Amino acid sequence: MNEQWWLAPCQPIDHVARQKAEQRQARLTKPTGALGRLEQLAIDLAALQGRECPHLEQPWIAVFAGDHGVVEEGVSAYPQAVTRQMLHNFVAGGAAISVLAHQLQARLEVIDLGTAGDGEPLGGVHSYGLGPGTANFTRGPAMTDEQCRAALAAGRASAERAHQARAGVYIGGEMGIGNTTAAAALGCALLDLPALALTGAGTGLNAAAVAHKQRVIDSALLLHQQVASQDPLEALRRLGGFEIAALSGAFVSCALHGLPVLVDGFIATVAALCAVQLNPGVRPWLLFGHRSAEPGHTYVLQALKGEPLLDLGLRLGEGSGAALAVPLLRLACSLHGGMATFAEAHVSDRPT
Amino acid sequence: MNEQWWLAPCQPIDHVARQKAEQRQARLTKPTGALGRLEQLAIDLAALQGRECPHLEQPWIAVFAGDHGVVEEGVSAYPQAVTRQMLHNFVAGGAAISVLAHQLQARLEVIDLGTAGDGEPLGGVHSYGLGPGTANFTRGPAMTDEQCRAALAAGRASAERAHQARAGVYIGGEMGIGNTTAAAALGCALLDLPALALTGAGTGLNAAAVAHKQRVIDSALLLHQQVASQDPLEALRRLGGFEIAALSGAFVSCALHGLPVLVDGFIATVAALCAVQLNPGVRPWLLFGHRSAEPGHTYVLQALKGEPLLDLGLRLGEGSGAALAVPLLRLACSLHGGMATFAEAHVSDRPT
Repeated sequence: MNEQWWLAPCQPIDHVARQKAEQRQARLTKPTGALGRLEQLAIDLAALQGRECPHLEQPWIAVFAGDHGVVEEGVSAYPQAVTRQMLHNFVAGGAAISVLAHQLQARLEVIDLGTAGDGEPLGGVHSYGLGPGTANFTRGPAMTDEQCRAALAAGRASAERAHQARAGVYIGGEMGIGNTTAAAALGCALLDLPALALTGAGTGLNAAAVAHKQRVIDSALLLHQQVASQDPLEALRRLGGFEIAALSGAFVSCALHGLPVLVDGFIATVAALCAVQLNPGVRPWLLFGHRSAEPGHTYVLQALKGEPLLDLGLRLGEGSGAALAVPLLRLACSLHGGMATFAEAHVSDRPT
Repeated sequence: MNEQWWLAPCQPIDHVARQKAEQRQARLTKPTGALGRLEQLAIDLAALQGRECPHLEQPWIAVFAGDHGVVEEGVSAYPQAVTRQMLHNFVAGGAAISVLAHQLQARLEVIDLGTAGDGEPLGGVHSYGLGPGTANFTRGPAMTDEQCRAALAAGRASAERAHQARAGVYIGGEMGIGNTTAAAALGCALLDLPALALTGAGTGLNAAAVAHKQRVIDSALLLHQQVASQDPLEALRRLGGFEIAALSGAFVSCALHGLPVLVDGFIATVAALCAVQLNPGVRPWLLFGHRSAEPGHTYVLQALKGEPLLDLGLRLGEGSGAALAVPLLRLACSLHGGMATFAEAHVSDRPT
């Protein structure tokens, strides 16, 4: 295994296919630009897939779970046991992402990087056993070097399974009590922002609890930021989480293999930012599903120049906001490939 | 036929089903509110359908076409012949709404109220032959009383076909060169606004042509507003169009029969506003699919307190923006009905 596999060159974008798709869009029976963002979406998918008329094969949804040592600082409204309980729920079909994957006929895989509890591997779950959660990053690094590399590699392995299965788009979701705290801390380190900018209510903290969460993040930044701000990998190791590192690894691997990524909300977008800082060639492979209600999401999207398709006030994670955008990708492809041109339909175009 | 059928009482909303749906949402395995607007959407559909767990049967899409006498003032970038040419395209499957209806497995019907051209009925199209277009409303009323009533009744007949077919949601689309001008004029009369507020680029006018369009609308308002501002039916007759009146009639009829409406963009929303002014009981039956790029749409939405699901810069009409929101309705229902509760999944809820 390459020591720093995430630095390999990403797949290039097909500019010829992009140009052909742009020309096709201009000939379809509608006023120029009348399909708004769906036109650019079809053109972007054409460039990523290398064909004038893109189409969306089965989406692949991977949900990565991990626990967080920082929860001992009291930063979440839910008990830590919920992370592992939700793994059961993902596999049993009762979670939001399970329902969405079923409805969208997407492949869903569930990956337990390291969660608190009895440690028994769960049926139907890829288990990595990196530990009962990360270390409390207000006292030291969240992960050892080995843990961070193993989590990145677990994400890579998931993206490679999706690539092997000829998935049309990759969605990475996450579950981990406390992980908005880790994502906010990591995002602040990557963007050199104070905790205030990226700290939000997570699963539903009140104002006093948000203020406490912000102080916890500020203390972690004080401890790590000097080292972390120089090096995204070190920032990830010190302030991230198992599932966040796995998402970053998955996103880099998607770009290495030429598999488009549909990025979910706040936590997945911080992982995407980390992936882009590790390897800037990742960025063209990212599409953005939705804008989260978590206020820090907007800062991270701005840093990535990402414009999400949906804005529905979601703040669930699991990949759910990205999954909800899948029908828009499918319909954008159908419109692009299925509409008649002015010439085919004998419709008069506007005078030029 | 009742002389003023649109004044009949609309179906009431089921508040018991709403309350049961609210209680169910609170028990599902996610933080409270984490599914954002999809939670309220499922609850609204529960109240409209009268069952705790709503589901979305086949959507019904009706596209109404009409031509507009005001085009002789030079208010559109496209020639008038396009209205009738697009009727062919709708039926032949090459238009955006045709592709969307096919992908969504929706029923699509095409209704020609009155268009310019050779007058031959087109195969596969319901033809009403109300005339080769409305009269130029800068000189007199757009429609006679008989034309306006016939267009309203054509919309009612479409909604009744949808109701008979047990459609789950009704989408009304429109096609008519010049109809953003008519919709802007009608909207200004209904809301007592100057032309400036609701005049936009339509299918793609430049700034000078938008200014001219605004002057045309202002002159029509000068001629009609005193009468029109007292009476929405008279505003519709004087400033609307065949397809706009048909949409208003369809929306009222949907509410009379208890069929939820998914409203499209600027023109359909003006027709919905007219329907609500004709009969306020229509409002609870309206859901809003998307926010159009046509700037006036926002004013009309505000007047209706409508919050669209999508905001993708579309400005096509045909019902396309509403059709694109259908998957969100379906997925909101699936999540509401298919997710496990905390008790079912043995997941710990947050401490209360």
